[in-house]
Amino acid sequence: MITGKNYIGSTASGLGTTFKTFNPIENSENDATFHEATEQEINDAVALAKKAFFTYKNVSGLEKSNFLNAIADEILELGDELITTYTKESGLPAGRATGERGRTIGQLRSFANLVKEGSWVEASIDTAEPNRAPLPKVDIRKMLVAVGPVVVFGASNFPLAFSTAGGDTASALASGCPVIVKSHPMHAGTGELVTSAILKAAQKTGMPNGVFSNLNSSGIEVGTQLVKHKDIKSVVFTGSFTGGKALFDIANNRPEPIPVFAEMGSINPIVILPNTLENNAESIANNLAGSITLGTGQFCTNPGLILGLKSDALTAFTKNLALKLSGIDAGCMLHPNIKKGFASTKEMVTAQDNVVVLTEKNAAENPNFAKSQLATVSGKTFLKNPKLHQEVFGPFSLVVQCENKDELLNVSQALEGQLTATILGESEELTNYSEIISFISDITGRIIFNGMPTGVEVCPSMHHGGPYPATTDSRFTSVGTGAIKRFVRPLSFQNWPEELLPEALKNKNPLSILRHLNGTATAKSI
Amino acid sequence: MITGKNYIGSTASGLGTTFKTFNPIENSENDATFHEATEQEINDAVALAKKAFFTYKNVSGLEKSNFLNAIADEILELGDELITTYTKESGLPAGRATGERGRTIGQLRSFANLVKEGSWVEASIDTAEPNRAPLPKVDIRKMLVAVGPVVVFGASNFPLAFSTAGGDTASALASGCPVIVKSHPMHAGTGELVTSAILKAAQKTGMPNGVFSNLNSSGIEVGTQLVKHKDIKSVVFTGSFTGGKALFDIANNRPEPIPVFAEMGSINPIVILPNTLENNAESIANNLAGSITLGTGQFCTNPGLILGLKSDALTAFTKNLALKLSGIDAGCMLHPNIKKGFASTKEMVTAQDNVVVLTEKNAAENPNFAKSQLATVSGKTFLKNPKLHQEVFGPFSLVVQCENKDELLNVSQALEGQLTATILGESEELTNYSEIISFISDITGRIIFNGMPTGVEVCPSMHHGGPYPATTDSRFTSVGTGAIKRFVRPLSFQNWPEELLPEALKNKNPLSILRHLNGTATAKSI
Repeated sequence: MITGKNYIGSTASGLGTTFKTFNPIENSENDATFHEATEQEINDAVALAKKAFFTYKNVSGLEKSNFLNAIADEILELGDELITTYTKESGLPAGRATGERGRTIGQLRSFANLVKEGSWVEASIDTAEPNRAPLPKVDIRKMLVAVGPVVVFGASNFPLAFSTAGGDTASALASGCPVIVKSHPMHAGTGELVTSAILKAAQKTGMPNGVFSNLNSSGIEVGTQLVKHKDIKSVVFTGSFTGGKALFDIANNRPEPIPVFAEMGSINPIVILPNTLENNAESIANNLAGSITLGTGQFCTNPGLILGLKSDALTAFTKNLALKLSGIDAGCMLHPNIKKGFASTKEMVTAQDNVVVLTEKNAAENPNFAKSQLATVSGKTFLKNPKLHQEVFGPFSLVVQCENKDELLNVSQALEGQLTATILGESEELTNYSEIISFISDITGRIIFNGMPTGVEVCPSMHHGGPYPATTDSRFTSVGTGAIKRFVRPLSFQNWPEELLPEALKNKNPLSILRHLNGTATAKSI
Repeated sequence: MITGKNYIGSTASGLGTTFKTFNPIENSENDATFHEATEQEINDAVALAKKAFFTYKNVSGLEKSNFLNAIADEILELGDELITTYTKESGLPAGRATGERGRTIGQLRSFANLVKEGSWVEASIDTAEPNRAPLPKVDIRKMLVAVGPVVVFGASNFPLAFSTAGGDTASALASGCPVIVKSHPMHAGTGELVTSAILKAAQKTGMPNGVFSNLNSSGIEVGTQLVKHKDIKSVVFTGSFTGGKALFDIANNRPEPIPVFAEMGSINPIVILPNTLENNAESIANNLAGSITLGTGQFCTNPGLILGLKSDALTAFTKNLALKLSGIDAGCMLHPNIKKGFASTKEMVTAQDNVVVLTEKNAAENPNFAKSQLATVSGKTFLKNPKLHQEVFGPFSLVVQCENKDELLNVSQALEGQLTATILGESEELTNYSEIISFISDITGRIIFNGMPTGVEVCPSMHHGGPYPATTDSRFTSVGTGAIKRFVRPLSFQNWPEELLPEALKNKNPLSILRHLNGTATAKSI
């Protein structure tokens, strides 16, 4: 049952103004009424998180793993109500909801395994050398420790996998940090259901009250207040550039600046080299049409920019891609506001000088549905107009036709930071374009050969991040087990008594983890 | 021979206004005249660094290690001229210069070993599973790659180990990033000599021109322009809070924000527990007197705050410590400006209400020399007045006498971020103070038991960093091999052709490094 309340730890509270979520397929409001968190509720949640941190930071990897696995179990226990609520609040189909639930469960279990195994803390021990000349060497040991209460902003486009118990929450809880979720207003009901699962799991596995709180909001005030709160130590956000950059600025202007890990999207350039275009035009067009329209283009890895060398082959390919896109049904967008944003950004971009729209204009549809659109410009125009470099969130892509290799090189050097960049080519022609590949690899977090950027594999080698403005910190990922590194810092223990050392640093290596002992990786005890 | 010029790669250039360095012992200017870098020279150095990056980012670990070792060799080749110049520009004794040169050489060689061995890139490979259901798994590989040109600010208090070829430069060059040093005006001659060693080493080992540049400055303009330059990707600074915070703000307000690793000092609290004070008062006083006055207190790990429980023993100890400090000769400070800063901050702190100065007032000395000073306040006063929490750079310490354990707990919770925190105690009494230790470990980068914070061991387990305002990024260290992590970011290669993969990610593991293969650490090939 959805109550519409905030959860300050296990305590339900609903004092603030109310709002409702929206069903974009039905084009009508959903039933439940949600209470926006008040200033007092926000302060209470942070105070409780701070108190919980004192205990939770020392909870063992095994216990944290039980907690994370219990969250996964409880989410499954929510059954159909979760799937139905998800689809009603997002317009996404049940199949996507089930798939995303699977990914969410998988992420929780993968962090459970990581902290149960324990080596992720990067334990390092340099033993004392009391007889070293000219000065004795002291015993120094180091490991990663949790930073404190974390605020996670739910993402509009991933109501499960990047929201309440998504990868951000899972990795923060795994690290030993309490989490306060600023629930996304578009799927507050889904958020509350998942919250109930987390709170049950916390209770069943004996976690301190306040290890998790969930706060509702319909505007920017709740998030702003949270990020400004002195006891919040880290912030995670997935969403628009405007939103992420605003939080980044707020956090940097606090008396004590804190890190903001904002993943702000990307246009994910695809470079099509001439030989592969000659040989594989049809399959590339099919794959691109699928990738551009997947999830109605509402993925941060959506391919919004296609770069090629001007040629008859490219002209024919572009026409063909436009035709294929025109043949794909319009899809429902997450919310009227998302549809509005898509329409206006798309119109702004296509209204720029020398931009040619290739897809057909469509008659009115269901107001929250969107048809994909393809446009094209010359390399020269693209280089001159930064407005053409910005993300259009939704099923849109821009083909840039470069005069020659030099212009393609210039375009690749003019690109801003990206989550992904893709090279489509024959193996033999890659060395011809090594300079372009070198520049492109400098501005991206993931470089793909002959594949599509959508479909982010959740695995240890995945880096989902990239240079600014793709994210505010290119050194960290929001997907894969590396995501835990966002919430920890190293702490050195000098000459620290054995009995007070954390388990990870004790002589006997009771956790049997891989450590660096005097510079060498080993699981040996001392 | 010191020319006083800037070095834009290997090209000497001196177009700007001039300045001289100062010998604080002689209280007079040194002979050489230095040219401040002009706007054009700065832009030229950055353009050359950007060009060098295109090549240098792909230089092998072995070649980088030869380069770093050659720098160490060439620094030794500078012989006595380096030591003499160092002492004339800093007022520090020749023994300290030789010791710091040894540390600098050691740091360069330790990064040389790190990159020669190669496992530091955290290579991770997840192999493809083409038959996985419902979706095939692609091949994804990840490693750390260099971010681009780095600006290193020389530190006033370490003319060698934290300056031109210090740990920051060594770690940035090791990572694959070109370096531009903003030379510290107080030791521009030392900086130029070391620059000549780096440039010789670069030439001898075939590094691209522009991998290193050295720019002189006498004010804040050169540094400001460098940090604002769009092609600079990272900034390292060691110095005052004011300086570091200003650079941090500039970098965050760029169109593309970049990380600033500013190590801004600390008051390094020492908690003395009652039993150890009862049993070891004399040796603690000796050790503290030595630590407070080491290098005339000009270390960022100088113990500026001593916390204890009010008692006759603490009163006697404090008196004794003041007596010992009064008996230690005044030491030369680095520069008249540093002495001025010490005098004024110390006066500001001791002029606060209820602060009692315990050391004797001294008659006039050599104008650039400083005597140590000890003062004391109650816990109540300390809690009320944040001015008492700030660093006095120089030989000064403040003893805070807490009414009881609760007040000591409150004081420990009121402390800002620190590089180090120290507990002096008997093993048996630690559990009595576990809450205090827990809070203190949340605000420090290194926690020490029964030792002194000065004397930072350079080893893999050392974390020299800490929560704000000790540094602007608690997740990174400026000492030890971990310092290399400041200049890299992960890059994932998806379905990337074997022949184009970096050596670290190739199937055969040609570098024989430790990698994660499908989640497990191994040096095996595929």
